Amino acid sequence: MVRIFWAGEDSLPAGDRGAAYGDGLFETILMRGQQGALAARHLERMVRDAARLGIPITRRQLQEAYSQAVNRFGDASAAAPWVLKLVLTRGAGGRGYRPQPGMEPHLHIQASPAPSAPELSGVEADFSRVPLTVNPLLAGIKSLNRLEQVMAAREIQGELFEVIQSNARGELVEGSRTNLLLASDDGWFTPPLADLAVAGVMRQWVLEQLRARGEQVTESPILPEHVLGNGCRGFYLLNSVLGVVPVRRLAEQDLPVDGGLATICDPLQTLE
Amino acid sequence: MVRIFWAGEDSLPAGDRGAAYGDGLFETILMRGQQGALAARHLERMVRDAARLGIPITRRQLQEAYSQAVNRFGDASAAAPWVLKLVLTRGAGGRGYRPQPGMEPHLHIQASPAPSAPELSGVEADFSRVPLTVNPLLAGIKSLNRLEQVMAAREIQGELFEVIQSNARGELVEGSRTNLLLASDDGWFTPPLADLAVAGVMRQWVLEQLRARGEQVTESPILPEHVLGNGCRGFYLLNSVLGVVPVRRLAEQDLPVDGGLATICDPLQTLE
Repeated sequence: MVRIFWAGEDSLPAGDRGAAYGDGLFETILMRGQQGALAARHLERMVRDAARLGIPITRRQLQEAYSQAVNRFGDASAAAPWVLKLVLTRGAGGRGYRPQPGMEPHLHIQASPAPSAPELSGVEADFSRVPLTVNPLLAGIKSLNRLEQVMAAREIQGELFEVIQSNARGELVEGSRTNLLLASDDGWFTPPLADLAVAGVMRQWVLEQLRARGEQVTESPILPEHVLGNGCRGFYLLNSVLGVVPVRRLAEQDLPVDGGLATICDPLQTLE
Repeated sequence: MVRIFWAGEDSLPAGDRGAAYGDGLFETILMRGQQGALAARHLERMVRDAARLGIPITRRQLQEAYSQAVNRFGDASAAAPWVLKLVLTRGAGGRGYRPQPGMEPHLHIQASPAPSAPELSGVEADFSRVPLTVNPLLAGIKSLNRLEQVMAAREIQGELFEVIQSNARGELVEGSRTNLLLASDDGWFTPPLADLAVAGVMRQWVLEQLRARGEQVTESPILPEHVLGNGCRGFYLLNSVLGVVPVRRLAEQDLPVDGGLATICDPLQTLE
């Protein structure tokens, strides 16, 4: 079974392993009324990655919790989008890092207003000084171990919308809260799954949309010179809540901007 | 200022960034009565590493909280050791990963009974299948991002006391909750600080004890063959609460055991 905690009503139990070690994972889903953008994909990712961490939850249990959350927070007549956050932890107990067998997972559920959508005319980004390290065993999991992203996000000041983190090989891997997509003369490029800290639901959906339109999309490393060089036709940040965000300026260099992809791949068109 | 939460009395605020992102760090201190083993070093490490994370706390503020904790939990007449855990988080607030300027840090304080000391005759260990990745910006910090250690600790079953994690170069870096020390024909060896996920207070103290006795201690990578080869004179696990733990069997191979170092470097001799 899974024990549900409603933010604002229930307090977090002291021994929760999410708070102690970041021993859990989370999803943020863009909602309108009682519908969620790419909701099934979010729930499927959580179940799949929970299994990788050894946290037992079934698709049915999570669906049931999601339905309760939608009924509690979703006003079918309200037009303003909101964000549903699901935080699943291994539960409370164990001796230090070592979990106790048979622990009941905790699911913390909270709702908040959605941020305003970024301008289609593009945003400013810069390179982060915080390198990104990815454990191959945890690659892609939206776990609660997000200190690298927090440290990068601290660099976001003034007009800056996002910072881009690189791995030890100097490849651009991710923004602090976004996946990357490059449009170039040679087609579309995005870093491969094995390199990612977080394998975004929006990333996967956008790749499928592009491929369904016959576009060539290659999952391979992106270097700074690929984005800043002459072959760049557009550089995009992908996020489930923010959608597709074109970058108009990177590291104080102007980039070509095309808002078309953001219009085609609007997450509010995927409400289900 | 720092806001203090006493485990068992105060509930964790819903927006705590420790629970959301592992945005914080912690110390566990072995206590007897109202004295703590290497207490000053623990408090100094927390203040220093908090500064690396940009979490504002002064040595004086932390000392004051420590004194309150000792007065609350420490029974001067009781002989049984206990463990004081201090969890410092960036506080509550911010937009997603990005912290809000001027947030008040949270200090969660809890006490628990100390685990029984391991046998001087040595323990069993094995190599972990969970690789260890260390972000150079966060190296050594006992942060709340401990999912790699949790995943490794899940491998500890039966008679096994610890599992040893390696980095991408195949070097032995750390146990899930311990630093490593090798005694060999060529002197003492321990992995260098830059490679460490957690730079243990006990590790540093033991190195100083050895050097004060004129022993040659080298901080350089340790390979499996160094421990399993003929030159090994002893392999030790170091932890502030457990002390110095000799390994008598690693990956089903017997190792030479000498309990002398554990006797010399007993953390309960460092109560202050």
